[in-house]
Amino acid sequence: MNILEIIEKKRDKNKLEKEEISFFIKGYTQGKITDYQAASLVMAIYLNGMTEDETANLTLAMSESGEMLDLSNIRDIIVDKHSTGGVGDKVSLILLPIVASLGVTVAKMSGRGLGFTGGTVDKLESIPGYKTNIDIPQFIDNIEKIGISMISQTMNLAPADKKLYALRDSIACVESIPLIASSIMSKKIASGAQKIVLDVTCGKGAFMKNIEDARNLANEMITIGKMVNRETICVLTSMDEPLGHAVGNTLEVIEAIQFLKGKITEDVKEVVLELGSYMIKLAGKGENIEENKQKMLENISNGNAFNKFLELVKNQGGDISYIEDTEKFEKASYIEPVYSIKSGYIQEINALNVGKIACNLGAGRITKEDNIDASAGIVLQKKVTDFIEKGELIAYIHTNDKEKIQKSKKQLIDSIKVGEEKIEKKQSVIEVLM
Amino acid sequence: MNILEIIEKKRDKNKLEKEEISFFIKGYTQGKITDYQAASLVMAIYLNGMTEDETANLTLAMSESGEMLDLSNIRDIIVDKHSTGGVGDKVSLILLPIVASLGVTVAKMSGRGLGFTGGTVDKLESIPGYKTNIDIPQFIDNIEKIGISMISQTMNLAPADKKLYALRDSIACVESIPLIASSIMSKKIASGAQKIVLDVTCGKGAFMKNIEDARNLANEMITIGKMVNRETICVLTSMDEPLGHAVGNTLEVIEAIQFLKGKITEDVKEVVLELGSYMIKLAGKGENIEENKQKMLENISNGNAFNKFLELVKNQGGDISYIEDTEKFEKASYIEPVYSIKSGYIQEINALNVGKIACNLGAGRITKEDNIDASAGIVLQKKVTDFIEKGELIAYIHTNDKEKIQKSKKQLIDSIKVGEEKIEKKQSVIEVLM
Repeated sequence: MNILEIIEKKRDKNKLEKEEISFFIKGYTQGKITDYQAASLVMAIYLNGMTEDETANLTLAMSESGEMLDLSNIRDIIVDKHSTGGVGDKVSLILLPIVASLGVTVAKMSGRGLGFTGGTVDKLESIPGYKTNIDIPQFIDNIEKIGISMISQTMNLAPADKKLYALRDSIACVESIPLIASSIMSKKIASGAQKIVLDVTCGKGAFMKNIEDARNLANEMITIGKMVNRETICVLTSMDEPLGHAVGNTLEVIEAIQFLKGKITEDVKEVVLELGSYMIKLAGKGENIEENKQKMLENISNGNAFNKFLELVKNQGGDISYIEDTEKFEKASYIEPVYSIKSGYIQEINALNVGKIACNLGAGRITKEDNIDASAGIVLQKKVTDFIEKGELIAYIHTNDKEKIQKSKKQLIDSIKVGEEKIEKKQSVIEVLM
Repeated sequence: MNILEIIEKKRDKNKLEKEEISFFIKGYTQGKITDYQAASLVMAIYLNGMTEDETANLTLAMSESGEMLDLSNIRDIIVDKHSTGGVGDKVSLILLPIVASLGVTVAKMSGRGLGFTGGTVDKLESIPGYKTNIDIPQFIDNIEKIGISMISQTMNLAPADKKLYALRDSIACVESIPLIASSIMSKKIASGAQKIVLDVTCGKGAFMKNIEDARNLANEMITIGKMVNRETICVLTSMDEPLGHAVGNTLEVIEAIQFLKGKITEDVKEVVLELGSYMIKLAGKGENIEENKQKMLENISNGNAFNKFLELVKNQGGDISYIEDTEKFEKASYIEPVYSIKSGYIQEINALNVGKIACNLGAGRITKEDNIDASAGIVLQKKVTDFIEKGELIAYIHTNDKEKIQKSKKQLIDSIKVGEEKIEKKQSVIEVLM
């Protein structure tokens, strides 16, 4: 077997065997296959596609390219939750404590944010004391003790995926459904997931810009799940406007805490309940989706979900006095109000632009090495379909960089479309695929 | 402009502009664009093709990537001749002295052989004293003095093509018609060709295995020629069996000398006359193809062609006593007869295999750094359609490596198909395209 034959095969639209895919992934991870050979193969995959078999084999080969987390000693079924990324996406922070409070075992490894997309680890780290980098035995201990742990990816999970993703980014081969699907699924499998609920975001602030693409990606991941024996359910959600009100690390943690305390935003609720009810179902803790949603709402009302969050933070070394009183969180030096320049109905709040403005204010990273400013971000006071008067408060900008205020205000105003016509409220959950 | 946008454009089947192609070629030659980015673009070109405009622009960009030979001071039209490669291809050695003896100015830069394909420079260097690496002023002096010079590529011609060819070879992207066509044409343009006659070989011992591919390549080069204002004529020739009798450097020089002295092999004659008559026509030295062929044959009969070859060799510092008496050439230590193991008609002499056996005997290079053994090779005593008796002499093997004799004999016998049925003699010239 050699890499030239493998490239030729895919170039000529033939199917690659499991052994050939594994040969490529091993060789590339070990540096025996060069970047330019991988680039040529990846472009051939981009243009000629992959069969279901090929995609499943690529997923397994990548998941096995590094360390693999073994959670089989934990008695419960491990259901993992993952989002394809969005702006203002604090769903994990809310959802996981709720389902944990209903007996679903949560063993969650999250990533950091890059570009306009936030990362759960960055958000958790804005809680003083919270340790995201505990070792695996302690991670498992925590899970066994209180049923939930949320940490960063401390292990060398799916290094082939990391290498291949960086390559794809530099050769214009990111937007390939089989490559995106296998990338996501390989990391989930390596991190020990037995069943998977995926939030496939779709719209201006998401990776997938239209429903068609999101649906294709979802179906591809469901198929991979079937083939590798990891049942997978995908919830397609809208990401045209930011989810909820806050965008930025501390700001989103505060919004999440308020949610768990009962101050519920409609769009966040819709997404949280849909994903959560399927997690409960897959974990074998409740067959009926509507009943699961009711149980989740109950555990918000009765404080169980909030208490589970407190327990999680405490167990990870975090200072729970911040959770009990969010006023304690350090605020940005400048909290600047932004006012509407016209009256009318809000027709669009461009999530991508809001994400980029927040990132520029310090909430995100441009490169992996950048530091983030936990307190920076944007808090929207209005959502799409709301009416606003000229001069009325539309948002706050939080930043420690005075220089950026004026430009950010203007950019934010430009990203919000106000018009005479009231548009119809779109559902946040588009559809569920399984 | 950036390389990612250019890759995306070709990936999405859009046409690249002249400036984009030029940006890529310049950046890649200078090392600003990485091998993996080039690999991704090349695979996209391989799979999505290029328009005539794109191919012409790629050709020009590559030809301008290094030094360019300026022959415009020479009063005559410079017609270049090039072959896409074959086994036993001594055509240039015979053809160019003939047309030079008829007043066609010959300014020929040739390459070295690699793999089973021989190179004219290696053949010329088997003549003691012949200097192939003279400098450009002397090259032009020689041309002006006697109307012909044949040297190696001393200049840094089309370095982008060299780099891109090596890349294509390692990423399974060699067999792409627009890339092959632009590669050949870029070198011709950089070496000062004003008009071009191409021998597009086709068959087992050629790069193009079937007529369809050869015709596509020919038409692509003719189109490039039109677009860059270098009139191009392609002669499609058969390369199923080796051309003529000898394969190997000294052995082919001797066959060429014998041809020029009047000992003419039919298949070599056919190819030489066809290519030569079109060279004469393009050089403006004779409109009528049949008359041109007659004039070529006359100049063999009357000794003018042979004398022009003598003049060429002398002018390049070669020892003409070898040309006058080919017995002086150093012979291989082992000249081993090979006998037929059955009686019948020769139905096939596999040119690719014969080329590989000769290469292995020392006549060719596996890598660019290998030395070649000028005296090594194979001399066929029979050609396809000939009848042979069991035990009759079919070929001689020439080598200095005793170890290789037995295996080579067996391989040679295996490469020659002998059967009861007499097959029809195929024409060596398949068609002429312009």
